[in-house]
Amino acid sequence: MSSIINQHEPLNKSVSPLELSQDGRFVRQTSRFITPFGDQAGQLPIESNRYRLLVSYACPWAHRQLIALKLLGLDKHISIGVVNPVRPTNTDKKDWAFDEPDSVLGIRYLSDIYLATDPDYIGRFTVPAVVDLSTKKVVNNDFLNLLRHWQLAWKSLHKANASDLYPEPLRTQIDELNELIFNDVNNGVYKAGFATSQTAYEQAYDQLFSTLDKLEQRLAHSRYLFGDQITDSDIRLYVTLVRFDVAYYNGFKCNRQRLIDFPNLWGYARDLYQQDAFKQTTHFDHIKAHYHLSATINPYQILPKGPDLSLWDSPHHREQLAQYGE
Amino acid sequence: MSSIINQHEPLNKSVSPLELSQDGRFVRQTSRFITPFGDQAGQLPIESNRYRLLVSYACPWAHRQLIALKLLGLDKHISIGVVNPVRPTNTDKKDWAFDEPDSVLGIRYLSDIYLATDPDYIGRFTVPAVVDLSTKKVVNNDFLNLLRHWQLAWKSLHKANASDLYPEPLRTQIDELNELIFNDVNNGVYKAGFATSQTAYEQAYDQLFSTLDKLEQRLAHSRYLFGDQITDSDIRLYVTLVRFDVAYYNGFKCNRQRLIDFPNLWGYARDLYQQDAFKQTTHFDHIKAHYHLSATINPYQILPKGPDLSLWDSPHHREQLAQYGE
Repeated sequence: MSSIINQHEPLNKSVSPLELSQDGRFVRQTSRFITPFGDQAGQLPIESNRYRLLVSYACPWAHRQLIALKLLGLDKHISIGVVNPVRPTNTDKKDWAFDEPDSVLGIRYLSDIYLATDPDYIGRFTVPAVVDLSTKKVVNNDFLNLLRHWQLAWKSLHKANASDLYPEPLRTQIDELNELIFNDVNNGVYKAGFATSQTAYEQAYDQLFSTLDKLEQRLAHSRYLFGDQITDSDIRLYVTLVRFDVAYYNGFKCNRQRLIDFPNLWGYARDLYQQDAFKQTTHFDHIKAHYHLSATINPYQILPKGPDLSLWDSPHHREQLAQYGE
Repeated sequence: MSSIINQHEPLNKSVSPLELSQDGRFVRQTSRFITPFGDQAGQLPIESNRYRLLVSYACPWAHRQLIALKLLGLDKHISIGVVNPVRPTNTDKKDWAFDEPDSVLGIRYLSDIYLATDPDYIGRFTVPAVVDLSTKKVVNNDFLNLLRHWQLAWKSLHKANASDLYPEPLRTQIDELNELIFNDVNNGVYKAGFATSQTAYEQAYDQLFSTLDKLEQRLAHSRYLFGDQITDSDIRLYVTLVRFDVAYYNGFKCNRQRLIDFPNLWGYARDLYQQDAFKQTTHFDHIKAHYHLSATINPYQILPKGPDLSLWDSPHHREQLAQYGE
């Protein structure tokens, strides 16, 4: 069947034309603001109440920051601004909007702060975005590496007994697994959902499910990805799993199986969900609204009634699993 | 969230503006050609090789005719013309097209034969449509009652030992159950999928699943809907069930559960599927193409790779069930 539209003009406000390859693959933009946090010259100083993190509860890349901040106790030191999960339709920009002007920054659109920072900014306006309140500029929107900053650079402000999400002896293994999770799972669902050719879509679909199959095996005998301890990798995997059945299965055509059809992944996801840092940052209403009420996909703005989200609170019995490697 | 388009202008080529109520409900058009078959004056005479039935393999209302014709042996007496499952995009009409001009009628579009029959026809051009080859006109497109004609009026041409799909003692019960199946299931998925208001959608969704729950119970102890014998009601239910996970779950937002999550309905559906009249008339490729490659819903024309259709051939053990009512 021939396509009726230009293959390289994304219809979706989540995609910039610069992010589509000639053969229809989605190639995610790199981050523009990547100055690291730290106490060296040219780094962003670690300071309580100096920064505001702008997020969408719908966005998995923002969600992972919220989980880490809570697990580490940094939510006491960094304030949060939350955008409406549905992109505004009254602007041509690929933007996000606040319901009311942000109480701290006074901005109505995410683009306001990006363009105040750099009037020539041409990328998508993305969350997560860290704003320095002393300059009212975006100082970091590095969705890939922000997690690492909270874990390493912000250590002095971690709460007492905060768990170590990136333990020294596991770092190489965590980095390696994260690479797989990013390429095939976190970004894999987007590669499937935003592909504009059948081939690019099927490659992403196959890679996604082949990696989920591997992770399903791995979690058969291990409570978390690295034994009994939650690590950085668990946060990264969780944010995609929790969106799977409400968004990606349908909206991104990732429909070989649902999350709830993988016994171990489903138990594992509920195990995490039922812990405060995960549950309090998981907003299914925002996730459903974002992925289903995008005007180009769903012109009548009707929200699916399913799936049954009460299942997330059902017992998982994962605490009975032996430690990984034993 | 406000809708960005006119609530009463269907985007979907399967819906006519006349089929949308003010409150966003889908109200299916009635059939225009309803002359019954029979040997009375003014009826359509029963005659081998006189009629051609135009169908889409994707369409459940056409599919039910194909199953009945095979079960009754009438497929030897009535020829079949099959349209391409994806509606043509090179015309404004809500039409269906043949890949090659139909070998018997020579028409390229379904509208050709409707307009040759009645130049003032203003409804949708629908399958199933029975064409009288002696006049080359559409003589019956009564999707609701055609099944009954094959069963009763065409009896003289049934094959030897054809099963009785509408047994005299069960007719009242069959009619009653068919009414429920039509309103809540067969047409219920369309009421959910084509609703243009959240309320109309949710009403259809609730009714659909509440009736599926009842049917799930009914099939716990009965192999088919009326015991060990396939009836008219089974044909009607099957055509919706077989499309459920590949089309309605996703495309029509009927996502409380999939068919395969209802143990009895899933075993029952496979039981039927694994019998010739059902399997040979079930074309998953046409069903997937039709429901997913509609240009307004899926502008890049990408076909979902899932779900796993090989499950349809897995054992169902339904033959071990005791008879209904015992």
